[in-house]
Amino acid sequence: MLSDFLTDLAARMAAVPERGAVADYIPELARIDPNQFAVSVCLADGTQISHGDADVPFSIQSVSKVFALALGLGRFADNLWIRVGREPSSNAFNSVVDLELEMGKPRNPFVNAGAIVVTDALLTARSPREALAEMLRFVRAAAGDDHIYIDEELAKSENLTGHRNWSLAYFLKSSDNLTHECDLTLGTYFHQCAIEMTCTQLARAGRFLAGLDTKHELISRNNVRSINALMMTCGHYDGSGEFAYRVGFPGKSGVGGGIMAVVPGIASIAVWSPGLNRYGNSQLGTIALEEISDALNWSVFDVK
Amino acid sequence: MLSDFLTDLAARMAAVPERGAVADYIPELARIDPNQFAVSVCLADGTQISHGDADVPFSIQSVSKVFALALGLGRFADNLWIRVGREPSSNAFNSVVDLELEMGKPRNPFVNAGAIVVTDALLTARSPREALAEMLRFVRAAAGDDHIYIDEELAKSENLTGHRNWSLAYFLKSSDNLTHECDLTLGTYFHQCAIEMTCTQLARAGRFLAGLDTKHELISRNNVRSINALMMTCGHYDGSGEFAYRVGFPGKSGVGGGIMAVVPGIASIAVWSPGLNRYGNSQLGTIALEEISDALNWSVFDVK
Amino acid sequence: MLSDFLTDLAARMAAVPERGAVADYIPELARIDPNQFAVSVCLADGTQISHGDADVPFSIQSVSKVFALALGLGRFADNLWIRVGREPSSNAFNSVVDLELEMGKPRNPFVNAGAIVVTDALLTARSPREALAEMLRFVRAAAGDDHIYIDEELAKSENLTGHRNWSLAYFLKSSDNLTHECDLTLGTYFHQCAIEMTCTQLARAGRFLAGLDTKHELISRNNVRSINALMMTCGHYDGSGEFAYRVGFPGKSGVGGGIMAVVPGIASIAVWSPGLNRYGNSQLGTIALEEISDALNWSVFDVK
Amino acid sequence: MLSDFLTDLAARMAAVPERGAVADYIPELARIDPNQFAVSVCLADGTQISHGDADVPFSIQSVSKVFALALGLGRFADNLWIRVGREPSSNAFNSVVDLELEMGKPRNPFVNAGAIVVTDALLTARSPREALAEMLRFVRAAAGDDHIYIDEELAKSENLTGHRNWSLAYFLKSSDNLTHECDLTLGTYFHQCAIEMTCTQLARAGRFLAGLDTKHELISRNNVRSINALMMTCGHYDGSGEFAYRVGFPGKSGVGGGIMAVVPGIASIAVWSPGLNRYGNSQLGTIALEEISDALNWSVFDVK
Repeated sequence: MLSDFLTDLAARMAAVPERGAVADYIPELARIDPNQFAVSVCLADGTQISHGDADVPFSIQSVSKVFALALGLGRFADNLWIRVGREPSSNAFNSVVDLELEMGKPRNPFVNAGAIVVTDALLTARSPREALAEMLRFVRAAAGDDHIYIDEELAKSENLTGHRNWSLAYFLKSSDNLTHECDLTLGTYFHQCAIEMTCTQLARAGRFLAGLDTKHELISRNNVRSINALMMTCGHYDGSGEFAYRVGFPGKSGVGGGIMAVVPGIASIAVWSPGLNRYGNSQLGTIALEEISDALNWSVFDVK
Repeated sequence: MLSDFLTDLAARMAAVPERGAVADYIPELARIDPNQFAVSVCLADGTQISHGDADVPFSIQSVSKVFALALGLGRFADNLWIRVGREPSSNAFNSVVDLELEMGKPRNPFVNAGAIVVTDALLTARSPREALAEMLRFVRAAAGDDHIYIDEELAKSENLTGHRNWSLAYFLKSSDNLTHECDLTLGTYFHQCAIEMTCTQLARAGRFLAGLDTKHELISRNNVRSINALMMTCGHYDGSGEFAYRVGFPGKSGVGGGIMAVVPGIASIAVWSPGLNRYGNSQLGTIALEEISDALNWSVFDVK
Repeated sequence: MLSDFLTDLAARMAAVPERGAVADYIPELARIDPNQFAVSVCLADGTQISHGDADVPFSIQSVSKVFALALGLGRFADNLWIRVGREPSSNAFNSVVDLELEMGKPRNPFVNAGAIVVTDALLTARSPREALAEMLRFVRAAAGDDHIYIDEELAKSENLTGHRNWSLAYFLKSSDNLTHECDLTLGTYFHQCAIEMTCTQLARAGRFLAGLDTKHELISRNNVRSINALMMTCGHYDGSGEFAYRVGFPGKSGVGGGIMAVVPGIASIAVWSPGLNRYGNSQLGTIALEEISDALNWSVFDVK
Repeated sequence: MLSDFLTDLAARMAAVPERGAVADYIPELARIDPNQFAVSVCLADGTQISHGDADVPFSIQSVSKVFALALGLGRFADNLWIRVGREPSSNAFNSVVDLELEMGKPRNPFVNAGAIVVTDALLTARSPREALAEMLRFVRAAAGDDHIYIDEELAKSENLTGHRNWSLAYFLKSSDNLTHECDLTLGTYFHQCAIEMTCTQLARAGRFLAGLDTKHELISRNNVRSINALMMTCGHYDGSGEFAYRVGFPGKSGVGGGIMAVVPGIASIAVWSPGLNRYGNSQLGTIALEEISDALNWSVFDVK
């Protein structure tokens, strides 16, 4: 029945004419065909159902912030919160305004500035190469799939064109909230964002946050809870309230069009469609998650 | 076991020296003894456990925004969202900044400006007296207790001293987002905030949001889900992210020191302690809810 | 020659098709015919040249803030600056944002919030009736003309429709920066704004700021200098920089379409045309002052 | 008499104990002895009076923005204003907030972001070396003194430590308001700021803005007027209103402690003292200019 629902969902989503706009500030992403859609769901019984373009690799971009936060909490625990906050932001994902108002402390680890700080922390006692290897190991272990790589060309491209991220990094540096040189931290950050995964892989990689990955114990149950809370309140930038209202379970989007979402104890879900809504979140991906939530009563706010 | 835990919790909370500051901008609230603490929990099996000063009536203040929203969604459904948003705010509960930036549309129904708009909507085709009677009926039905009243003296006092709320109301009026005269809407709003309840009553009144009140069906299941989502992302003002992170289930605080919180499908909880933390939320109440969440694994973000 | 220039100027201005938009938030002002233009110049030799609709009375609105400031500095000297600042604002004349950021201290006496504070100060030891009589005496003495009155109907209308000013007043009250009740101070403020003057009268009334009114010595030379400085940096709201750049001498505009401007030691000028530019300053009035400044090299920034 | 006054002023200023704080974010500037003070005045009759440490070279820093603007207006006239505004800012000289609110258009050419844009424009059809040579030629011609140089060490130091300026430059780049690469424009900007001059030289260099330099005609009279207007409304950052109020003639400060000021048609003045007030303007320099203005009635707002 879930399979039938997802088959139908993927078919309907493939036919929607209004698909949002592909991110255009990164040349490589601007070229992606917006007529793609994929959905994949991992369940507690170990089964996985995937539909649509679920085996096409895409750039996970900001979804990587979740993996970075998992590593960061694992290594630094509450000390991480000295450098980054835990509150949603009213401003866009790449805003500098919050940063100036809060004296260089990003509001949360899922806005760009906050994620850059987390990456900077991960470079403590690690070279960029080591830090990235550690992250890839983590993501591969989470997905149970070693065929996950970084798109080096994309990382290089973002390094050249990601001027706003450079602005954020230098602001953090001027506020004494960046330990390493901007190019070291940002170089690592752009590589982390350029991890490529398929929708199938991404759904599997989210199982550790849904409590479905009992084998690996990648992070503590306490950190799972913390990350899920942050994905709920901050995972979709200044559209997070709307996502909580419509979908009702934690998720994290990326400008590549992917969203990783978890229904604690029940399911790990990935959706992908490159067109973005005005908040920078996948337009069809958000709609698909809303339909899934409605159909299966998966909102954590629902009274079953 | 839950009873033992709550007994111990109430005893420990009664002894905490650092209790926050009682709201001082409303003379009547400033006089409340901060050395009070109460907790009450309603469970799915119909039982209720209360400890501490659970039968002392207190002013529910902003907790009333939840009941107003329930009535507003019931009467106007999605049309309510034309006049008020669904996103958390980075600013304080009484901030005017958001209102000016968003052209008079409050960010959510739980900041003061948003709640004033909801009350204004509730006055459609109702006199203030009728609207307040309707709200009292709703709250009494929810609590299953007719002995719930409005503190008229407090309402009058707030009418005279609540200058910031008058500023918000006139701003809304100047933005064409207030249908009635400011004094009509604010008069009703101040009365609604001045509803007095005990902790025991408040816990019972929250059952409809936890899905424990199968008899009354006060509002649709869909609206329950919507309200819970908004309490999660916006229920504690600019401390909402922190509350989601630490406690992990929906709740709404009031400057009277009360918090009503729900664990969907499991429990309805009320805590009360008059001292407030820097966000204007009950200091001990927040700590108590965090302990309850930890002890019972009630965070919706936890993987059971 | 000046007369010829002004004759020509008035004729050209009367024919300009793009005249800006008449203030529409005050019903009485919305009805004014935008096809009016007047200019009047008082010179050091005592002569006055007027052209266009120079004898049509209009509502001076915010130009009255200059007279209020003159009275306020006369009575309270530097103590006035405890309650209001001296810096230009990036926000609109009726903005609440600045007020919240600066804890209730308006940035300058020419934004609405600042002027309301000055009026509130003028009510110290005066009833509204006495304060308004004092202001009328001052304006009449400055203009050398007793036929200057308050438009009571307009004042009453603003009292009913000026919701944004009520919002500002209540914000000031909530910040402990309003000594009197909002309705007392605002009632006085709306009456002060509703002073009616002709362009001829207004030019004469500005002579004390240009140093041309040696007889009356209405205020100290030091206060003249202070007021002129504030008119230069703050007299045209968030268009003040542009006015200083284009015109180059101090001036104060009102939403009635009038501008009073002074060339220290040389001239007092009034222009009037009801259509406003996007900053809320008279569109043709600003252009006319720019032409006068260019033609006569009257910018204080010019090197003669 | 002016000489006597300045002698006395320099002596008194040398003895003031509260001298403000030396800029500490540039290591080279942090080492300057704060117990220095200099004043120099050029008059219309060609005389120059200097007192105190008037022959000690110091880093002119933001005073260089005036020379850059003079060159920029000379080359691009009004086209310059497509990229930068003419309004004062409520925020600090190095704020990013304004930039984000105004979509990457700096509010004026005297905040850092605006000056970086002007420098970027000056690099049109010039290499950094050529642009800097052009600026040095301009400054030397203005001062009538070829012994004016750039402190290369300081420029290099700022290049390494001026993180906030890098943040601003990258923000401009991300807003398509920077034509050249950030390092090219900023490298030039840091060199321009590192021009070293004595107080004597700086006073002479300001004569073209006071109309005292009839020989050279470095820029048009119209541009002189424009620059003076901008120095009045924006020359002292978010302390510009205060400067206009207290001093009353145009000036531009630098974090090196220098201020160049002009009394149109009458005098060109330079003051220098390294300690800064809370706006980042020379504390004693500002006080000295206020005393000069008061003693000589040089405020343009005064009625002589």
